[in-house]
Amino acid sequence: MLIEIWSDVVCPWCYIGKRRLEKALAGFEHADEVEVRWRSFQLDPGAPTEPTEPTATMLARKYGQTPQGARQMQDQVEAVAAEEGLVFRLGDTLHLNTVDAHRVIHLAHELGGSDLQGRVKEALLDAYFARGRNVADHAVLREVAVACGLDAARVDEVLAGSAYTDEVWADMEQAQAYGASGVPFFVVDQRYGVSGAQPAEAFAQVLERAWADAHPVVQVLAGGPGGDVCGPDGCPV
Amino acid sequence: MLIEIWSDVVCPWCYIGKRRLEKALAGFEHADEVEVRWRSFQLDPGAPTEPTEPTATMLARKYGQTPQGARQMQDQVEAVAAEEGLVFRLGDTLHLNTVDAHRVIHLAHELGGSDLQGRVKEALLDAYFARGRNVADHAVLREVAVACGLDAARVDEVLAGSAYTDEVWADMEQAQAYGASGVPFFVVDQRYGVSGAQPAEAFAQVLERAWADAHPVVQVLAGGPGGDVCGPDGCPV
Repeated sequence: MLIEIWSDVVCPWCYIGKRRLEKALAGFEHADEVEVRWRSFQLDPGAPTEPTEPTATMLARKYGQTPQGARQMQDQVEAVAAEEGLVFRLGDTLHLNTVDAHRVIHLAHELGGSDLQGRVKEALLDAYFARGRNVADHAVLREVAVACGLDAARVDEVLAGSAYTDEVWADMEQAQAYGASGVPFFVVDQRYGVSGAQPAEAFAQVLERAWADAHPVVQVLAGGPGGDVCGPDGCPV
Repeated sequence: MLIEIWSDVVCPWCYIGKRRLEKALAGFEHADEVEVRWRSFQLDPGAPTEPTEPTATMLARKYGQTPQGARQMQDQVEAVAAEEGLVFRLGDTLHLNTVDAHRVIHLAHELGGSDLQGRVKEALLDAYFARGRNVADHAVLREVAVACGLDAARVDEVLAGSAYTDEVWADMEQAQAYGASGVPFFVVDQRYGVSGAQPAEAFAQVLERAWADAHPVVQVLAGGPGGDVCGPDGCPV
């Protein structure tokens, strides 16, 4: 079973939704047969690659709020994150570009499949949300990727060039084709979509349904009035 | 969409079930994308290839009934058939072996696919049930098959030898694997089974369900409490 997740590294609901999905997977009988594949989605492709502005300042400007108002919004998100066991430090986060982070996430999949990719995705979310690190910075991306086990030379090569940029945009086009205008957006077996950081129970239901779908048995409709058969013993009327 | 139907040429409920399925297909929006494939099932592999006994006599003997009692059973089946527009003359039918009829049905599929096979199957059911013909007799099988458009030389060749005997038995083994001990037995897309001559409405439901199954769209679960997303306009709390 394949779960594809469109998500951004700087998207708080994505990290919260990731934990809720993980909770559902922890209770899912066939979790060991589930592959999670991360797809790229940039919330703000125009965000600076050399960030200087705290996210709170950007939010206050964008929504015409006071710094205190923006901080209050962040406080509420932090409280929801805490319910999922996540310590967010949104006051430390910068408004930044994530295309390079997504390129590294694509590299991780090429080097080590969905397992390695999952470790890098988690490490980048943690770096940004829990540690307020600048995940647009190549040195930070390199450090996080190498700590996860990626080959340093390959990471340097990718960051120095433009490898996987097409893949990042192809992911975003696919999200658009699915009608997803926001993230997180989950697609199970190219069949069931889940939009948003739904409760773990909602994910659990989709997992069960998709599993049943992927493992058909011939479901027999039998008997009842009119369901007559002829067998070796004749044709009952 | 593929509908496989296990059926015998001498099985009254099979012919009745065929009409009911056809009624459902007539009201099914995607009927032109449905292929019906006939599979072999012999109700009585030990029945004589040179039949002499009327079916009613065999039934009376088998169930310890009077000839009148057996005829009454047949009358009831004829009444049900009539409701589907079928004129059964069960009093004229013989207790006979159907392996050769099934071999010709397999030949028809090889020569002309499911369309030609369907015409031969219908013609053999009609020959047996409406005309009381001996469909174990090679001359009768040849006449029916050739009238449907089968090449006479190929029909003769098959009837003179044992071609398609293995296919007949393979079909019966497959029915057993599906747990079908009687016929008609319908399997849609190797996924949904229908046992017996169910009402047309039951077939219609299975057709709709199988169609939806074969043509997935990503069904999105969205919104509701907790279904939060971040989008280009931010991350609502």
